[in-house]
Amino acid sequence: MSLINRKLEHVEICLYEDVQGIVSTLLEDVTLIHQAMPRMNFRDVDTRAEFLGKTLSLPLMVTGMTGGHEELGKVNAVIAEVVEELGLAMGVGSQRVAVERPETAESFKVTRRMAPTAPLVANLGLPQVTRGYGVKQFMDAIQMIEANAIAVHLNPAQELFQPEGEPEYPLSALEALRDISKELNVPVIVKESGTGMSMETAKLLADHGFKILDVSGQGGTSWIAVEMVRNRRKGNWKYESSQLFSGWGIPTAASIVETRYSVPDSYIIASGGIRNGLDVAKSISLGANIAGMANPVLHHAVRGKEQLKKFFEEVAFQLRAAMFLTGSRDVKTLRHAPLVISGKLKDWLESRGLTLSVYESIRKGA
Amino acid sequence: MSLINRKLEHVEICLYEDVQGIVSTLLEDVTLIHQAMPRMNFRDVDTRAEFLGKTLSLPLMVTGMTGGHEELGKVNAVIAEVVEELGLAMGVGSQRVAVERPETAESFKVTRRMAPTAPLVANLGLPQVTRGYGVKQFMDAIQMIEANAIAVHLNPAQELFQPEGEPEYPLSALEALRDISKELNVPVIVKESGTGMSMETAKLLADHGFKILDVSGQGGTSWIAVEMVRNRRKGNWKYESSQLFSGWGIPTAASIVETRYSVPDSYIIASGGIRNGLDVAKSISLGANIAGMANPVLHHAVRGKEQLKKFFEEVAFQLRAAMFLTGSRDVKTLRHAPLVISGKLKDWLESRGLTLSVYESIRKGA
Amino acid sequence: MSLINRKLEHVEICLYEDVQGIVSTLLEDVTLIHQAMPRMNFRDVDTRAEFLGKTLSLPLMVTGMTGGHEELGKVNAVIAEVVEELGLAMGVGSQRVAVERPETAESFKVTRRMAPTAPLVANLGLPQVTRGYGVKQFMDAIQMIEANAIAVHLNPAQELFQPEGEPEYPLSALEALRDISKELNVPVIVKESGTGMSMETAKLLADHGFKILDVSGQGGTSWIAVEMVRNRRKGNWKYESSQLFSGWGIPTAASIVETRYSVPDSYIIASGGIRNGLDVAKSISLGANIAGMANPVLHHAVRGKEQLKKFFEEVAFQLRAAMFLTGSRDVKTLRHAPLVISGKLKDWLESRGLTLSVYESIRKGA
Amino acid sequence: MSLINRKLEHVEICLYEDVQGIVSTLLEDVTLIHQAMPRMNFRDVDTRAEFLGKTLSLPLMVTGMTGGHEELGKVNAVIAEVVEELGLAMGVGSQRVAVERPETAESFKVTRRMAPTAPLVANLGLPQVTRGYGVKQFMDAIQMIEANAIAVHLNPAQELFQPEGEPEYPLSALEALRDISKELNVPVIVKESGTGMSMETAKLLADHGFKILDVSGQGGTSWIAVEMVRNRRKGNWKYESSQLFSGWGIPTAASIVETRYSVPDSYIIASGGIRNGLDVAKSISLGANIAGMANPVLHHAVRGKEQLKKFFEEVAFQLRAAMFLTGSRDVKTLRHAPLVISGKLKDWLESRGLTLSVYESIRKGA
Ligand SMILES: Cc1cc2nc3c(=O)[nH]c(=O)nc-3n(C[C@H](O)[C@H](O)[C@H](O)COP(=O)(O)O)c2cc1C
Ligand SMILES: Cc1cc2nc3c(=O)[nH]c(=O)nc-3n(C[C@H](O)[C@H](O)[C@H](O)COP(=O)(O)O)c2cc1C
Ligand SMILES: Cc1cc2nc3c(=O)[nH]c(=O)nc-3n(C[C@H](O)[C@H](O)[C@H](O)COP(=O)(O)O)c2cc1C
Ligand SMILES: Cc1cc2nc3c(=O)[nH]c(=O)nc-3n(C[C@H](O)[C@H](O)[C@H](O)COP(=O)(O)O)c2cc1C
Repeated sequence: MSLINRKLEHVEICLYEDVQGIVSTLLEDVTLIHQAMPRMNFRDVDTRAEFLGKTLSLPLMVTGMTGGHEELGKVNAVIAEVVEELGLAMGVGSQRVAVERPETAESFKVTRRMAPTAPLVANLGLPQVTRGYGVKQFMDAIQMIEANAIAVHLNPAQELFQPEGEPEYPLSALEALRDISKELNVPVIVKESGTGMSMETAKLLADHGFKILDVSGQGGTSWIAVEMVRNRRKGNWKYESSQLFSGWGIPTAASIVETRYSVPDSYIIASGGIRNGLDVAKSISLGANIAGMANPVLHHAVRGKEQLKKFFEEVAFQLRAAMFLTGSRDVKTLRHAPLVISGKLKDWLESRGLTLSVYESIRKGA
Repeated sequence: MSLINRKLEHVEICLYEDVQGIVSTLLEDVTLIHQAMPRMNFRDVDTRAEFLGKTLSLPLMVTGMTGGHEELGKVNAVIAEVVEELGLAMGVGSQRVAVERPETAESFKVTRRMAPTAPLVANLGLPQVTRGYGVKQFMDAIQMIEANAIAVHLNPAQELFQPEGEPEYPLSALEALRDISKELNVPVIVKESGTGMSMETAKLLADHGFKILDVSGQGGTSWIAVEMVRNRRKGNWKYESSQLFSGWGIPTAASIVETRYSVPDSYIIASGGIRNGLDVAKSISLGANIAGMANPVLHHAVRGKEQLKKFFEEVAFQLRAAMFLTGSRDVKTLRHAPLVISGKLKDWLESRGLTLSVYESIRKGA
Repeated sequence: MSLINRKLEHVEICLYEDVQGIVSTLLEDVTLIHQAMPRMNFRDVDTRAEFLGKTLSLPLMVTGMTGGHEELGKVNAVIAEVVEELGLAMGVGSQRVAVERPETAESFKVTRRMAPTAPLVANLGLPQVTRGYGVKQFMDAIQMIEANAIAVHLNPAQELFQPEGEPEYPLSALEALRDISKELNVPVIVKESGTGMSMETAKLLADHGFKILDVSGQGGTSWIAVEMVRNRRKGNWKYESSQLFSGWGIPTAASIVETRYSVPDSYIIASGGIRNGLDVAKSISLGANIAGMANPVLHHAVRGKEQLKKFFEEVAFQLRAAMFLTGSRDVKTLRHAPLVISGKLKDWLESRGLTLSVYESIRKGA
Repeated sequence: MSLINRKLEHVEICLYEDVQGIVSTLLEDVTLIHQAMPRMNFRDVDTRAEFLGKTLSLPLMVTGMTGGHEELGKVNAVIAEVVEELGLAMGVGSQRVAVERPETAESFKVTRRMAPTAPLVANLGLPQVTRGYGVKQFMDAIQMIEANAIAVHLNPAQELFQPEGEPEYPLSALEALRDISKELNVPVIVKESGTGMSMETAKLLADHGFKILDVSGQGGTSWIAVEMVRNRRKGNWKYESSQLFSGWGIPTAASIVETRYSVPDSYIIASGGIRNGLDVAKSISLGANIAGMANPVLHHAVRGKEQLKKFFEEVAFQLRAAMFLTGSRDVKTLRHAPLVISGKLKDWLESRGLTLSVYESIRKGA
């Protein structure tokens, strides 16, 4: 199966099969504290956030999804146009296909044409580094969309459960990536793709110089579930195992805390199951800098530009509502907003040796 | 839409739509301790409570709801008559309509005629102060019903989700209210309206001189849900967001604790989802001085005086039962009654840095 | 309604209406620890327990239920015969009826005839003391069945919710009971009747010299629910309130702990929702000396002696099984058996300032 | 009923009645931490484990089940063949039948023929020691299959609830076993059979020199449930009691922790409800050396060699997946992998005086 066909199947599965929310993000174990006296006017809420040296109107990016095929180029164009208009950021899907088959590059390039000023994020996978990608291929990907950063995704779980997969994640790949990153003109974001980042992983990445981290935790799109569907369709023996593991991973709420705790000065993108502005607000108050969304953006984008714009406007309103009602004038203040952690997320933190009061000070210091 | 029509729609929605108990008050996480040996006779239970320099027969007030229309004046009359007869207290709905259109004042004035001796509480919103109300308008409202206090409501959440809303809650409004309050002949009560008061808000209010606080927490009437119904009816784009936030706020049980903890010497009215005498007893033992009810009073009042009286008599019996069975001879003793806090309310307190034993001593000292 | 008819109605309701297990005893939050190596033979398990100077074959008594009517006398006879045969203990129902109408005494006397050697427990209520009962009436009740002790029941909750009730529980009644008890030739047991004993109550009773305590907690027969049925049948206004309170009280597991903790040297009878031998074992390992059962005994007794005997034999087997599998050779050892406390019972203990480790040592010392 | 017929009935019940998972193993309260950067290649995962001086390809054994009848010999042959081929270990069912009736020995001997190099474990019960078995019988059993160890099972719960049972588990049996063990040429494994090992039992066993422990906890096959079925079929009076106790025992996850904590240097086999490779991984990271499975192996074995092989290959893949995704290069590393403990298992540990941080160091030291 070609890379292109696989990407098309992935998109189709994300659109029409039930592969989201297998387990909880644990964001429902987070309660923001209502402040009856917000000490400001609603219109004064300032949702701007810094990202890659630019200012976003909202602390929100669309994380990487598509490209590599004409149809997917259209989706990219819609997202890019809206992102530009609303002042958001956008990542593209893995550009490996275009690096290897330049005739498909147009489906990526369109994003920069439609979004001349928005922060755009290129995308390659760490497995490509393992298999030989170097500075050249990275520069290709970056230049293709005049990217402001390049995201390198880690997806060992997906690779493992896909019918074709046999993942390679040696430490040397990370070291190679570190070396490559020194030659690039834009920063590297390391991102998961739906199974989350742990303390240990975040620390390891930081030790290699990577401090812009997209946690992409469990509770949203489960890529193991996506591969489960493919295994089912193919009658592949991995079907049962992928079902067993479909909820594997670190729930997004836990992953934000793990990352912020272990790398206090990291720049955290909270993604995986972020579905509305309240989720964005909770993520940021838990410790993230901005939030990211993939799947819901796809769902709205295929219905057209207006639909997607309306969706983001509601997300913006919901975030502003949460900020106003917690008395958080700006995103930085939201990061310090008081909150309640209960249920399984509380157990999680305790198990990981993280007392609430210690976390409280780290979160606020961040 | 005129103020009057909106109030009528609000009342209608509260009567006929499902806008209560979206989330729990968390009062079910509070267990009063049965005392098999009450050390008194049931008839000796003394449920009296002080409020605004007067003595109530029960620690219970009807919190502000209506007025501004002939039909609503009738509801007010029924409530006032019963309140007078049973020795309770009553607040009226927002008097902004009558301050601005004096021909509607009769629907408020009737309360004092029917309740010549009961503590009556006038009502205006903080947003009116932001928009220019001063001592004159406050005195108007107070004199209209010869009020014993005036309640100023905070309702940023409702304002935000109502189709017309764009709330303003600057700190200057609170400062202006402080200045106004100094010129009034009756005390000011600051009240929420169904989304609860936090530690931070209670502290801020106390710092501005307001120590009579009606917490009005989540778990009862959700004004966001009320506006959700209105958004649905109007096809307004805020519909989905109001649904997402319909359970937003601090549950009443948590709000009582937050307030008592942060302002130990405050006078606390516990409202929001108080539905029977057991809820009243739990609220008081958690730290409130008296409890307040709105929605259920409306439901009974529209069915007539006898129905409402019967309802309050049952509430009184239930409260007396809880007092008797916890061996609490009077309301002050009930405040010190032992209790068990479990489940999510326990997690809440721990998250907010409030150990049970510390709270225990504050609650008892209060 | 006469006392006799009321008792008949109570029995009928207990047999045919749904008045048990409204809430949990919390015994399911207690886990006994299996010991794969019991260090004994099953036949060596010694379930004997001391009670009132006699030796029971099982740590189990039938707590007071009936008498006062010919039909109920038959039930008493069946229970007494089986109790004698199996080496258990038995309490009779309130003897007030027989004290006041001696012609009904036969329905109580039959118990001693059928059980010449078993420990029998007479029964009166504290309300009778309030209303004038003295040494004479107590001696009447005791002599009527040549009792080995007299149980005085506390039932403020039931009295409160019964259509006719207006309970009196002054401290003076307890003082009077203390004085009466000094003149009696048998010890006084103070018992609840389905709503449990708290730390405070147990301490108060001990301070008045009463240290044989039958906790009779919530989770079994709810007498508030029994009265709820009667209120419903009569169309009485207390119906809704009795429904609201039907789960009121201290769950049996919590009540055992509260009592053992506050009066370490008390003799505790654990009753209220004890339904099988595993419940008996858990109660004892939580801190009780023996367990008590009422309602299930009634259900089996009305079906005849053989049925009841078979029931007790199964209970005995289950208790022996739990003892064997926890490596508890005798009842005293069972009291020290390790156990796990989880869920709401754990929250309960923490709320009451009772750390597990402190309780552990008290339980073992007892 | 002869021993042979009983064994056949047991196997039939395990295959066709609902006797598994009556309660939870509590393994779902254990979450392994995903590591997005595994620092290795999937193919480098090393799942080998030492057992009885041999090296297994997976940390997995089939625990003892059958033998004693021609049909069961066939099952044993299938299992042995697959075990040999895949590099696993295998225990046979109780050999008492063959010790007493040598003509049935062939059904056991076949295992060594089919598995010439695999570690094979002989099996007898402690009750046989109580009833007179000595070195001779043990040597018989061991030589019958040229065993690498002999497992002695403890099954007091099963013995108790079986229609015919009246168990004997005196300490002297354990002492006798200690003496016997000194004369044997292979080590003794002490195993439970589905109700788990406690701290106290593990300690006692270690004090008698037994440190290879198969915890066999609750949550998998419940032998009390098996006997419940037999009681039901026979109309035996123990039916209700066996139902009441069918979930009795220490859940496997708790049992691993109890054992590792009380005997830090024990060799732990985690069995009871282990159903897939994720369960194996969790067990090992909780503290076990290898895992064991019985019932699911039976289910697959009766469908033939290929079916069973396929099952084990999936288990192996799942274990490797969990190891890879937690960045555990080998089984020893998996033992130190970070994990989260929540819910009832957390309550269990706290109740048993085991703080998470203390356990953390024991687990890692082991
Ligand atoms: C259709 C689709 C394609 C994706 N492709 C990529 C990709 O090429 N590279 C990448 O880093 N992540 C990819 N992702 C992962 C997302 O960026 C994101 O981490 C993950 O889906 C969790 O976010 P969500 O729950 O909002 O979907 C893709 C997600 C979707 C839904
Ligand atoms: C029909 C209705 C009208 C209300 N109007 C007002 C108002 O004008 N001013 C105010 O301060 N609160 C108002 N409230 C809020 C109540 O005073 C109270 O804070 C809230 O409803 C929570 O209490 P409940 O759950 O018992 O209804 C109103 C409530 C209802 C049900
Ligand atoms: C039919 C019936 C009658 C009872 N009558 C009395 C009584 O006269 N005196 C008393 O002290 N308790 C009485 N009880 C209460 C029981 O002794 C016991 O405390 C309570 O029912 C809880 O136990 P259970 O859940 O096993 O029924 C009665 C219980 C029942 C079921
Ligand atoms: C059919 C069957 C027969 C068994 N026979 C024995 C036996 O003879 N000796 C023994 O020690 N355990 C025996 N067991 C217990 C298992 O070894 C194991 O401890 C228990 O079944 C829990 O594991 P599981 O949940 O994977 O089945 C038997 C189990 C099964 C299912």
